[in-house]
Amino acid sequence: MAYTLQQLSDFEDIRTLKHRYYRAIDTADVALLDTLFTDDVSVDYRGGGYRVTLTGRQEMVDFLASSFHSDFAGMHYGHMPEITLTGDDEAEGIWYLEDIAIFTDSGVHTSGSAVYKDRYRREDGRWKIAHTEYDRIVEVVRKLTPDEKVTAHYLAKAGLKPHERKDISHLITWFDEAA
Amino acid sequence: MAYTLQQLSDFEDIRTLKHRYYRAIDTADVALLDTLFTDDVSVDYRGGGYRVTLTGRQEMVDFLASSFHSDFAGMHYGHMPEITLTGDDEAEGIWYLEDIAIFTDSGVHTSGSAVYKDRYRREDGRWKIAHTEYDRIVEVVRKLTPDEKVTAHYLAKAGLKPHERKDISHLITWFDEAA
Amino acid sequence: MAYTLQQLSDFEDIRTLKHRYYRAIDTADVALLDTLFTDDVSVDYRGGGYRVTLTGRQEMVDFLASSFHSDFAGMHYGHMPEITLTGDDEAEGIWYLEDIAIFTDSGVHTSGSAVYKDRYRREDGRWKIAHTEYDRIVEVVRKLTPDEKVTAHYLAKAGLKPHERKDISHLITWFDEAA
Repeated sequence: MAYTLQQLSDFEDIRTLKHRYYRAIDTADVALLDTLFTDDVSVDYRGGGYRVTLTGRQEMVDFLASSFHSDFAGMHYGHMPEITLTGDDEAEGIWYLEDIAIFTDSGVHTSGSAVYKDRYRREDGRWKIAHTEYDRIVEVVRKLTPDEKVTAHYLAKAGLKPHERKDISHLITWFDEAA
Repeated sequence: MAYTLQQLSDFEDIRTLKHRYYRAIDTADVALLDTLFTDDVSVDYRGGGYRVTLTGRQEMVDFLASSFHSDFAGMHYGHMPEITLTGDDEAEGIWYLEDIAIFTDSGVHTSGSAVYKDRYRREDGRWKIAHTEYDRIVEVVRKLTPDEKVTAHYLAKAGLKPHERKDISHLITWFDEAA
Repeated sequence: MAYTLQQLSDFEDIRTLKHRYYRAIDTADVALLDTLFTDDVSVDYRGGGYRVTLTGRQEMVDFLASSFHSDFAGMHYGHMPEITLTGDDEAEGIWYLEDIAIFTDSGVHTSGSAVYKDRYRREDGRWKIAHTEYDRIVEVVRKLTPDEKVTAHYLAKAGLKPHERKDISHLITWFDEAA
């Protein structure tokens, strides 16, 4: 009832793949992001006040780079993976997101949690994210108080400036805030 | 000085067991919770303002389902396991809890951390939680501000409604808030 | 393309090393801290409002014990490791820090994230931290509100009292808060 070396290695590599994803979005590492998804990646994020649906690696990278931009400060943590190998080169994963998102210009502060259901595929020896979706579990929205100071903000320099961002509005639907 | 395949597999499965626990409590997945504990599970949670002690799987599942109910929004994250195999079918684990708990009716918001000491036992080939206890490290209590909106609340639908909850008051002792 | 048993074991042990580090600093477990670093450990923490540089195990343990003292409440979580084995007894690791730090006397509350680049070395069969550095990604500073109560504070008892602390001011440079 033990896993094989290959299976244990796959668990390690799939975890690291997802860990890289979170680091890459919060530091706007677009070159790294570009290596993490299959060409046909599909996305469905069901947030409290929004829904994101998109398809394809280029659309995903554009969405991420233009969402987590120079007026955004994000802390995205992926916790507590439950990974299942479903084939030699296919796997599924459940993850628990913890996130804090601050729009530094408007001062809107969103925090919460979500449960992901992912699919992974190995291509040319490397695991990639083939599908990712989540449902929000908790989401809380408030404004930064006058007393509250953002004293480090990596994306201010690393993130895309307003004129560099792509229009991604067709990928997001915004809802009323009623829970 | 390397672990065996079996030992490495046990580390994986024990982690996943605990990961499932956190997902199950925050989404009120009682069917999943029911599979995670030994029949003789024992619990001792030493919080800042409370202490929980109980014994037995049914009492544990009742406690969890009636604590994390439809007027509660919880984010429970289990971090940084230190797992030790103490027998072929026995293990111990230290985990670091990060949690945010919101009573959505009263607006009481509790956040903090705790260090768990767990024991696990394998029964019929599956690892289960046989004992779990924690000590609070930090706990902070405040009220939601008028500006602060809960914009997603999964347990509002999935959690037990008031008339469905069991009386678990005998399992909890509440203290004064003096630290 | 699978890892060996030794490599998988090293991943496990390096993770556990770092997990112990976080538990030890938040509970002022100086005896445990003393076992986690090489004698020549080097540190460079580039925070939002501070920079810490130091060298040597004793200086590191002194710094940690006198930073996380009886008037400090800390929650430090190390997430999402990306570990690379660079030799039989050498490894590198990227980690993502999530932290909340409360000075309980002044009420200053700092929260944020950072990305670590660590190096590890195996000595006498045990992995130790040989180098650790981080860059802040996000840092937010505020004061506890009058409504906000610290209801558990482990370091109040376990942490060093004022007269027990060493002068570590030469290890820290404080900056203006301008982001």
